[in-house]
Amino acid sequence: MRRARAFLSLALAGGLLASPAAPSPAPEIAPVPAPAPTAQRLLQHLGADRIASNLKTLASVPRLAGTPTDRRMADWVAGQLKEAGLKVEVSEYQVWLPYPVSISVEALAPEPYKCRLREAGNLIDPDTTMPGVVMPYNAFSPSGSAEGELVYVNYGLREDYEALEKLEVPVKGRIVIARYGRGFRGDKVALAAEKGAIGCLLYSDPADDGYMKGDVLPRGPWRDEWAVQRGSILRGAGDPLTPGRAAVTGAPRLDPSEVTLLPRIPCTPLSYGDARPLLEQLNGPLAPHEAAGSRSWQGGLPFAYHVGPGPTRVKMSVSVEYASRTIWDVVGRLDGASLPDEAILLGAHRDSWGPGGMDNGSGSATLLELARAFGEMAQAGERPSRTLMFAFWDAEEFGIIGSTEWAEEHAAWLARSAAAYLNVDVAATGPRFSPSGSPSLANLLLEAAGDVTDPGSRKSVRETWQSANRDAKVSDLGGGSDFVPFSNDFGVPSTSHGFSGDGGGAYHSASDTFWFVSTFMDPGFIYHEVSAAVWGAAALRLSEAPALPYDQAAIGRQAIVAADDLEAQVTQQTRGVLPSLDPMRDAARRFIDAAQRLDSRRRRLPRSAGAASTIPLWNAVSRQALASANAEQIAADREFVIAEPAPGGATRGRHLLLSPSVSDGYGAQRLPAIAAAWRAGDAARASAGISEVAAAFDRASAHLDTASRALREVQ
Amino acid sequence: MRRARAFLSLALAGGLLASPAAPSPAPEIAPVPAPAPTAQRLLQHLGADRIASNLKTLASVPRLAGTPTDRRMADWVAGQLKEAGLKVEVSEYQVWLPYPVSISVEALAPEPYKCRLREAGNLIDPDTTMPGVVMPYNAFSPSGSAEGELVYVNYGLREDYEALEKLEVPVKGRIVIARYGRGFRGDKVALAAEKGAIGCLLYSDPADDGYMKGDVLPRGPWRDEWAVQRGSILRGAGDPLTPGRAAVTGAPRLDPSEVTLLPRIPCTPLSYGDARPLLEQLNGPLAPHEAAGSRSWQGGLPFAYHVGPGPTRVKMSVSVEYASRTIWDVVGRLDGASLPDEAILLGAHRDSWGPGGMDNGSGSATLLELARAFGEMAQAGERPSRTLMFAFWDAEEFGIIGSTEWAEEHAAWLARSAAAYLNVDVAATGPRFSPSGSPSLANLLLEAAGDVTDPGSRKSVRETWQSANRDAKVSDLGGGSDFVPFSNDFGVPSTSHGFSGDGGGAYHSASDTFWFVSTFMDPGFIYHEVSAAVWGAAALRLSEAPALPYDQAAIGRQAIVAADDLEAQVTQQTRGVLPSLDPMRDAARRFIDAAQRLDSRRRRLPRSAGAASTIPLWNAVSRQALASANAEQIAADREFVIAEPAPGGATRGRHLLLSPSVSDGYGAQRLPAIAAAWRAGDAARASAGISEVAAAFDRASAHLDTASRALREVQ
Repeated sequence: MRRARAFLSLALAGGLLASPAAPSPAPEIAPVPAPAPTAQRLLQHLGADRIASNLKTLASVPRLAGTPTDRRMADWVAGQLKEAGLKVEVSEYQVWLPYPVSISVEALAPEPYKCRLREAGNLIDPDTTMPGVVMPYNAFSPSGSAEGELVYVNYGLREDYEALEKLEVPVKGRIVIARYGRGFRGDKVALAAEKGAIGCLLYSDPADDGYMKGDVLPRGPWRDEWAVQRGSILRGAGDPLTPGRAAVTGAPRLDPSEVTLLPRIPCTPLSYGDARPLLEQLNGPLAPHEAAGSRSWQGGLPFAYHVGPGPTRVKMSVSVEYASRTIWDVVGRLDGASLPDEAILLGAHRDSWGPGGMDNGSGSATLLELARAFGEMAQAGERPSRTLMFAFWDAEEFGIIGSTEWAEEHAAWLARSAAAYLNVDVAATGPRFSPSGSPSLANLLLEAAGDVTDPGSRKSVRETWQSANRDAKVSDLGGGSDFVPFSNDFGVPSTSHGFSGDGGGAYHSASDTFWFVSTFMDPGFIYHEVSAAVWGAAALRLSEAPALPYDQAAIGRQAIVAADDLEAQVTQQTRGVLPSLDPMRDAARRFIDAAQRLDSRRRRLPRSAGAASTIPLWNAVSRQALASANAEQIAADREFVIAEPAPGGATRGRHLLLSPSVSDGYGAQRLPAIAAAWRAGDAARASAGISEVAAAFDRASAHLDTASRALREVQ
Repeated sequence: MRRARAFLSLALAGGLLASPAAPSPAPEIAPVPAPAPTAQRLLQHLGADRIASNLKTLASVPRLAGTPTDRRMADWVAGQLKEAGLKVEVSEYQVWLPYPVSISVEALAPEPYKCRLREAGNLIDPDTTMPGVVMPYNAFSPSGSAEGELVYVNYGLREDYEALEKLEVPVKGRIVIARYGRGFRGDKVALAAEKGAIGCLLYSDPADDGYMKGDVLPRGPWRDEWAVQRGSILRGAGDPLTPGRAAVTGAPRLDPSEVTLLPRIPCTPLSYGDARPLLEQLNGPLAPHEAAGSRSWQGGLPFAYHVGPGPTRVKMSVSVEYASRTIWDVVGRLDGASLPDEAILLGAHRDSWGPGGMDNGSGSATLLELARAFGEMAQAGERPSRTLMFAFWDAEEFGIIGSTEWAEEHAAWLARSAAAYLNVDVAATGPRFSPSGSPSLANLLLEAAGDVTDPGSRKSVRETWQSANRDAKVSDLGGGSDFVPFSNDFGVPSTSHGFSGDGGGAYHSASDTFWFVSTFMDPGFIYHEVSAAVWGAAALRLSEAPALPYDQAAIGRQAIVAADDLEAQVTQQTRGVLPSLDPMRDAARRFIDAAQRLDSRRRRLPRSAGAASTIPLWNAVSRQALASANAEQIAADREFVIAEPAPGGATRGRHLLLSPSVSDGYGAQRLPAIAAAWRAGDAARASAGISEVAAAFDRASAHLDTASRALREVQ
């Protein structure tokens, strides 16, 4: 409905105001300043059909990072951005990427079985057999062979190995088979190696991702018998040979042997069709049916699971070609009309394992339409006040590499000018809004969702989400996508959102096609358009507010909650005498006070400053004061980033308040260094961590107070 | 350990006191009265090896009610009882029993499949292919054919049909397939017919009873691919042609067409091997994954379940031979030493669908050993004070027929003389004590469990049970076994207990053999012996207490709780104005007072009366007074039984306080007539029901007060 009306409005506008055939009447009144763009206007420029068309092009070839088809799509995106009137920059990096050469997995005993390791595809969707899709593999597995008895380790989590120890089934010297799910695959391989396993097989169990959930492809959206989840097992973000600096030509590089985050044992993924004969032959104890605090180890294959060891004897061989390969980040830029030095970044990864319709053709196609709409509005005179940048990252699938290298290359600029990073990795697999973000942007993302109507409920996306989830909260950013370098390494407040549904069974398989998205995930691309609208509305709220609309008090509140949670956990576990968190909490409270002083100052800005279109009209003094205040707000966030992660791998990343979880790279860990010290019972490290966080809060408070003072100059 | 010590004691006793080779010394002191039997002494007479041996004999042939091998085992049991010194009576009844002639089920479309309907058995356990086991069928299905589209109805419960209505999939004119579980199969068929289905298939889903639970036979105790759960679908207990009277020769009989409880549509059971091709071809809506308040409809077969209708088109044909057939109840009697007119009945059904190792060779073999032990003790001079009767019922599997006919034949005697009925249907499938019973015997059953040591925990069975189940309660008696006629129709307080474990996958299949029980359910028959000991200890507590040790106040308390629960439900559902339950509650409180007066009188009995062995020593006046008091206690219980069940099938059975649930014949319903009236919103019927229960409580209170007065005479 909204689409039809929008079309009508544009048609009328064209007819009445812009028809080249009609002679221009002489202006009768003085020209008014160009209007600032608004979410309502943006909506009229977005089109679901164009998102679909973008996706059809993007998903017409595999976009494996570093390949010619990846390059071709980078060029196509750059061309589209230019056509939309954006300034485009393509950044090249030379990064360390493995491509598979040959992989084999077979059961040698008791019944021999040679895994097919090939996906079947289906005739209904010819793209499922598109040429050039990389064979199923786990990127960053070392080349190597292993042969040994098989042990089933459930999800391969630490608690699973504890259960195996109770069953007296060690994995040392054996090959483990773990099902995907409940954590980042790279952490499963690392834990298997830590436990002494000599090889690791990862598979999709039909209980988690197959027929037990619903119809499988092509009948429904769940994983079929032979589809394989590819995926990287690199722990950490960015090119592993250039940690902390951009992988540009000539940059100094580590030797691969120096990289501690690379997996140490061969690992490769299986379909459940291939996993079945391996698992079915296992003997030894029955898989636990009621493990403490978790569900049964029994999966959805039609037999009672056993853990082994053996008698299934497996031989696996992985041959990989590692090389320095070129990748291409494409960034389109729309300079701000009044505060061009303050930038809002919007990003989505463009690369994929196969056709990548959902992951992340979906997000790329949506971002491209959003960039086009903003470009169109700018050409029509509705230019955002701050600069908007639209980034199409490469090599996210290998380990968030393209965005990390770009962020590292632009570190100084980011520290000074990046007001926010707004990510989308899969725009829509259904109608359920799924927001995550930094605490200071959580509320803004919800307000953006309040600007957009959900076509299903006819209420706003925000109301729809709140009525479906009574206690719904914006999730913490964990790991696993391109917000990581911005949020975690450079302290740029970030969000990531999407719309989710049931059945993402094509994930990282050759079946993740345009047909998959348009048939099962989002017929009509309705929620892709809604996703674009929320994304754009968030960008506009950020670009058009005179003072940056951060809710920085939320940073302090979240840290206090995290401290309380931590104490509650540690008290329960009675892990000895640990230092009080009060110094940190007190500093957080001072920071909340400073943020509230800034907020109240912001509310007292001249009323006209509340309307975005007025920014260009202010006097030079006001504009300078505003820019200073914004710079201080940006600087406050950067105080929580430290130079190096905690030693010994106790934390992931460099942010003092939130980082990807060490045990699960997809999860989030609040107060990571303090939490790690507390878990280790290390009072000295905990004490240092508490002081470090408290000092960061106090430095950040000083920035906010400076910002408050600067805002007094705005008239 | 206990067994070894017992053996030693007996050996010593034999050597020192009873060796026929040694000359008897002249008695030097006056003979003391014979000791009363105690639980401790009983334990020394019980032997797990003899239970095993009994089971080996019983399970050596199929014991389908009315067949020659059933008769042979009746004779064998009778002989064993006689040998143990009991008086034995074999009661014959002529009852209406269906045997299957031929059954076929096939899918006609889209892919034809002819169900094999035969169990596979296995080579490890030759008894699984024992000749003469009846083909899988549902007894009391009418003969008939049906052909139509198939609809999957999950468990076939009322809530499942509500979900189907939401999916707009009616079953009218179609054949339904329901999985076994969560209710009595006969109620599923009746509901299917009520909803207009023309045929019903029942099958065992591997999620409930197969490989999803653990290893299947013969590797483990769960149901294998081709094993079928037989079972009756008769709703109600007893010969359907002679309701309310014994099916003896010459008794008047209904015409089968007059029997309203007989199923109206053909029904037959399937293995999951046979169910798979039928279910796998279904189309229509996906089976609900999150039904309100219940789990997913998805079962454990390896595809996504759909509900249909069709395209699976099924043709089923059931041919049954109904006939009047003779069955044999065997009852062994051990007359009481001092109160022979008061009897404790112990019962187990002897018939089975196949070899019936677990169900109920297990209970029969245990009861036979218990009878032997009591006989042995009686012959040694340790005779119970009250009469014990050991009953081996026939045709329980067809619908609790043998016990019901026997109870109907002995109705007058039961009303007067039966102090308790103690049932066991499956003695042990594992180590977990599972007690159920009438409220007035619940505590006594737990005290009996306190008399017996659990060999696993080395604590008493009661303590073991309580520490494993913090809020454990003795369950209400529902339906589904031989306590039904005693408890429900004649008001005899009853218990039923067993020891349970994981994996009863041979239930009602040809795999329910001696090997199954001895390998998976109870290796060493340890918990069979424990089960016998608890059973015997309960019987002794009942037989040896001078005044019957009922906790009758519990009857009143339970009724008040039931009234409160009912009110809470109805208030929640706001079903209009219904009469107050207070008159009933007030009467229950008066009854509790009367029971407490009786208890306090009982506690003031002469101390010597507390010792069982003293009963025979009392004077005639005391013994007469005690007998009168006991008769009044028995009579109090009978006041809760009415002549006829509530009209229109609103309740099952004749007990005012507790009956099998109407919607699930295995479940229990408290205050059934009142609850039915409340559910129907029928104020008049509710009011009548409340008055009826209140009046029964008041009549019962009068009996207890008479008993209290009688006990004053005991000196």
